[in-house]
Amino acid sequence: MNFSSKLLENAVNEVAQLPGIGKRTALRMVLHLLKQPKSQTHNLANSLSNLVDNIKLCKKCHNISDVDVCDICANPSRNEEIICVVEDVRDVMAIENTSQFKGLYHVLGGKISPIEGVGPQNLTIESLIEKVKLGTIKEVIFALSSTIEGDTTNFYIFKQLEKLQIKTSTIARGIAVGDELQYADEITLGRSILNRIPFDKSF
Amino acid sequence: MNFSSKLLENAVNEVAQLPGIGKRTALRMVLHLLKQPKSQTHNLANSLSNLVDNIKLCKKCHNISDVDVCDICANPSRNEEIICVVEDVRDVMAIENTSQFKGLYHVLGGKISPIEGVGPQNLTIESLIEKVKLGTIKEVIFALSSTIEGDTTNFYIFKQLEKLQIKTSTIARGIAVGDELQYADEITLGRSILNRIPFDKSF
Ligand SMILES: [Zn+2]
Ligand SMILES: [Zn+2]
Repeated sequence: MNFSSKLLENAVNEVAQLPGIGKRTALRMVLHLLKQPKSQTHNLANSLSNLVDNIKLCKKCHNISDVDVCDICANPSRNEEIICVVEDVRDVMAIENTSQFKGLYHVLGGKISPIEGVGPQNLTIESLIEKVKLGTIKEVIFALSSTIEGDTTNFYIFKQLEKLQIKTSTIARGIAVGDELQYADEITLGRSILNRIPFDKSF
Repeated sequence: MNFSSKLLENAVNEVAQLPGIGKRTALRMVLHLLKQPKSQTHNLANSLSNLVDNIKLCKKCHNISDVDVCDICANPSRNEEIICVVEDVRDVMAIENTSQFKGLYHVLGGKISPIEGVGPQNLTIESLIEKVKLGTIKEVIFALSSTIEGDTTNFYIFKQLEKLQIKTSTIARGIAVGDELQYADEITLGRSILNRIPFDKSF
């Protein structure tokens, strides 16, 4: 691209570093900002700088937080005997949206992935094991995505927890509520049959 | 969305104001930034603030520029007798990339569009007419997109230039170089037949 302005070129190049944004899309976004009041761009820039300068990870669950201990961990009405292990903040948000879980979380910060160079030491696994050793936790729920990396991570943590004689579980996989069987993929349908539950518990 | 952090929520809301970016995509982008070195976010924020604070419009052609008169207008080897009228900086960039045009530009800043509330007074049409009245310009080339808005804008300007007895032209529409006729749309193919050119001028 042949820019008429260094200022424009710099802005486009920076925006184009965002995931999934090519140069053309970046240019369209930047030209859009130029048509808006300057304050919109300043608010955008400040919100991003503020975020990276001031964001914390909760000391207890490692979730993204504005304070040292996040709202969920600091809430005395949550059940601290049940810990749900998730990959990142998006999973916490998704589960919180269901209002079905009243325990606490443990955010791993990713999954074990040799290809992406992520080993157990890059995740918060050791902190989870230490937490379980304190004796309050009675059950650990694995809620990672069901991919090879997710399964590997689950198994790695499971092996460490085994010696501690604690209850472990994974979230149920199956046909989504409201979905028709004929459109479900084989693996999900197969798992949902294997992991069937008593009918009177399915309401 | 149920954010665990105000800082995160603010950043996501600001990013989601960009065109074509939903909340989910914004969250993915912001979490990506949190995994990069802080400097990347600061560079992004600064480049955007710098752009909106310091960008100028060229006094002569109204193109985006870092200085009062843009590089193209300031270049003495460009032919100031031919002016190409375009919508915005992207069109200037596209035409410059072809290296086929040695005249100057006039950037309108949009097209006449009653639906979007853009009238002639919101564009740089008057400045173009004044420029032509000075007497140096011999030809005005219309290079707006061939939409109803583009045609309306062309015609509006054409009517004003008519009295000034100046040569006007529009860029040729036709089958793209390398494209097969059978896949061309009817309107483009029709125009390319009507506007046929002498064979010896087609090389
Ligand atoms: Zn927490
Ligand atoms: Zn200029």
